[in-house]
Amino acid sequence: MSPSSDQTTASPAAAPGAERAAPVLAHVDATLDAALERLMALLRLPSISTDPAYAAECDRAADWLRDDLTGMGFDAAKHPTPGHPMVLAHGPDAPESGAPHVLFYGHYDVQPVDPLDLWSRDPFDPALENTPTGRVIRARGAADDKGQLMTFVEACRAWIAVHGALPVKVSLFFEGEEESGSPSLVPWMRENAEKLRADLALICDTGMFDRQTPGITTMLRGLVGQEVTITGPSKDLHSGMFGGAAMNPARVLARILADLHDDRGRVTLDGFYDGVPELPDEIRAQWQALGFDHRQFLGEVGLALPAGEVGRSALEMIWSRPTCEINGMISGYTGAGFKTVLPSKASAKVSFRLVGQQDPARVAAAFQAHVRARLPDDCKVEFTDHSSGPASVMATDNPAFEAARAALSDEWPRPAAFIGSGGSIPIAGYFNTILGMDSMLIGFGRDDDQIHSPNEKYDLESFHKGIRSWVRILAALGAR
Amino acid sequence: MSPSSDQTTASPAAAPGAERAAPVLAHVDATLDAALERLMALLRLPSISTDPAYAAECDRAADWLRDDLTGMGFDAAKHPTPGHPMVLAHGPDAPESGAPHVLFYGHYDVQPVDPLDLWSRDPFDPALENTPTGRVIRARGAADDKGQLMTFVEACRAWIAVHGALPVKVSLFFEGEEESGSPSLVPWMRENAEKLRADLALICDTGMFDRQTPGITTMLRGLVGQEVTITGPSKDLHSGMFGGAAMNPARVLARILADLHDDRGRVTLDGFYDGVPELPDEIRAQWQALGFDHRQFLGEVGLALPAGEVGRSALEMIWSRPTCEINGMISGYTGAGFKTVLPSKASAKVSFRLVGQQDPARVAAAFQAHVRARLPDDCKVEFTDHSSGPASVMATDNPAFEAARAALSDEWPRPAAFIGSGGSIPIAGYFNTILGMDSMLIGFGRDDDQIHSPNEKYDLESFHKGIRSWVRILAALGAR
Repeated sequence: MSPSSDQTTASPAAAPGAERAAPVLAHVDATLDAALERLMALLRLPSISTDPAYAAECDRAADWLRDDLTGMGFDAAKHPTPGHPMVLAHGPDAPESGAPHVLFYGHYDVQPVDPLDLWSRDPFDPALENTPTGRVIRARGAADDKGQLMTFVEACRAWIAVHGALPVKVSLFFEGEEESGSPSLVPWMRENAEKLRADLALICDTGMFDRQTPGITTMLRGLVGQEVTITGPSKDLHSGMFGGAAMNPARVLARILADLHDDRGRVTLDGFYDGVPELPDEIRAQWQALGFDHRQFLGEVGLALPAGEVGRSALEMIWSRPTCEINGMISGYTGAGFKTVLPSKASAKVSFRLVGQQDPARVAAAFQAHVRARLPDDCKVEFTDHSSGPASVMATDNPAFEAARAALSDEWPRPAAFIGSGGSIPIAGYFNTILGMDSMLIGFGRDDDQIHSPNEKYDLESFHKGIRSWVRILAALGAR
Repeated sequence: MSPSSDQTTASPAAAPGAERAAPVLAHVDATLDAALERLMALLRLPSISTDPAYAAECDRAADWLRDDLTGMGFDAAKHPTPGHPMVLAHGPDAPESGAPHVLFYGHYDVQPVDPLDLWSRDPFDPALENTPTGRVIRARGAADDKGQLMTFVEACRAWIAVHGALPVKVSLFFEGEEESGSPSLVPWMRENAEKLRADLALICDTGMFDRQTPGITTMLRGLVGQEVTITGPSKDLHSGMFGGAAMNPARVLARILADLHDDRGRVTLDGFYDGVPELPDEIRAQWQALGFDHRQFLGEVGLALPAGEVGRSALEMIWSRPTCEINGMISGYTGAGFKTVLPSKASAKVSFRLVGQQDPARVAAAFQAHVRARLPDDCKVEFTDHSSGPASVMATDNPAFEAARAALSDEWPRPAAFIGSGGSIPIAGYFNTILGMDSMLIGFGRDDDQIHSPNEKYDLESFHKGIRSWVRILAALGAR
């Protein structure tokens, strides 16, 4: 998902570096089949990071990337971590003096595949399929993130093939734990900061605004995950013997969860909206001009009406407003039939998406206070902290953003736009806080890619025009 | 659980028929070991009615009862049903003219035993064990209901052994589907009404008020079970991409469940309290005089404070007030760790215990209306009806009740009382509506018997004094 930032037709003037890019684009078109073959080879490796049974496959995916980059002339190495290895590769300095140094980030690990019976084919036997919206590459990891990272690798390969060199200095950094919480990432980045530092980070793990409109993601929401367990009686009771006399923790939990939102869809936690900026008028105008079709967006998942805060658009809710969602809850008997049990415990997983300057620790504390304020004297509560990270806003005043926007606008039917993303991509924050680098998030995923779900796919068009997009962006960055 | 109905010490005058009962009681004491051996034999049959794998064992338990009763001189037969068989046995007319005809009811089937690893021994290898509160018979079904039904069978055996006859005409009726919803019961009762009809039904499937105080259960709550499933999006969504814009059915369900009670613990359903009688002053006074210790009652399950309606005692809540309890709820991701899913569905099982003239159909309809009134336009709802039955109040003006109370008061340390029960025992209602008979519910279970749970037990004292209690009750009923 990504909107074109303004509705005026993009100026017909091509992005800087377009002339040098032209033969590279032709080479990309001529060699697409070989590029696709390489992606298929990478997709055949079941590099599921969260399952220890696939550790060797993760290692093989890292080897595959190192070897591919070495073959292209990069100084590439695989680095061990307590978890899965990092791959880091450095190209030579660009011939043009003053050309910037970019660090590209992607991840070679993939999500688990269950439930396997919902897949139309073996998730690790990739294939091209024809669909009503075009040809797609069907496999686990096709979109998240192997297909996306290979758009950049193939763009580099084409530049080298045509010009013998890249227009900027390029380093590539791949991790293998993105789908399992990246436990090794921050320590490894801190220890290897000097090897990683560049002028700008490029991240390819996001999506387009719509099928015709590329986007540069400039706002990422933060995340707080909290698990709460309420205990009432010390064991499950018979609701006939104890019902009405003993406190039911499911009833307590329902009240706690119901009270998280008011009648107008606002989150009720104390101080929750502290640090939430109002959307600047020009951004709001840009977004309104995008003509985002919430009926279609929601219609694809069987809904029709935007939920959330009264008076705010669906796009505003997803990109710029904080949220509170119940991700899971369970209590008592949930099997077939009926059991008149009065449960001992009730628990829920609740997450908050953060924006602006919202402080994850304060939000977590406010949630816990909200729970405790509604806890009867006879109940106990336990909390588990899950993921936590602040929102991030990209430095769009970095001239690289305008250069990339122009390059993307040359490639796609509609001009590119700066867009928000409801998801959370912590790596952009780490590049800023650990390495002092700005990040630019550009990706070619589409809303129907089924990432994290059965039958994941990546459009062949996303792959082809994604490679072409990076060819243009590299040219534009080198020509500044 | 059961209170002595008045605090004045019971009159020292023995119950009617006490003289004829005395040698029978002595015989019970002298032959207790043999009675225990018979109970053990019945407990060794794993007659789990809900699991088709145990159908032959249910049949064997029915055979065992038929054969045992035949051996005692009853005209006993096993009757097939579409499910497990019924056993019906008739004794001869009592020698005394005008003696009543009683029909005794019990069930020979038992609950499943899982989780098996929580049992201290094989659930179908019964044994006597010493515990801090006395000797217990440990086995599945020891209390529910094989141990209880055998108290009556052994009382009959002792009467016949001593006097060659029973003081009343006795029929016995055993079913094997009580723990699996009794699907064959009502049709079979309707078809065999003439064989079943007697002057009074005796049911042994309830408990005492406390360890010293026997009880006659005169109020049983009714039950309505409803399952509700709310569907929002057509599939689970990524809460980053859709959170804040798409309706979360877990949030909808939490609001629905939270709104079932008001701040004073009353159920908010429209018309819910229609037909709920206020407790008569004399019953309230009786119950207050019982000195029910809610601290101990709740303390045994890790609680301290009575929940429920403000201003009503725990005993009143359990015995005489209607309730609404959440028995189970589930939505989204409930496994280990965290998943930022926006669930497609959320469901709950909710049950209502009914009293007085509350109409089960109206309560179910009011619940469904409560849900629909809180359903956003974008969500769908499905309901599943589970068990449903009205409350019943026994006909305590039948003189048999005072006779039984006097007999029980002779046997136990404290006088017997008319008590309520939070549970629901539909058979008493069926005897009334199908056969026009009053029922008297007398049982010797204790709160810590662990029925439906691992390590079920029946106190040896319950078994021994239970047999003696029936000996006295039969004498009292015959002497009226």
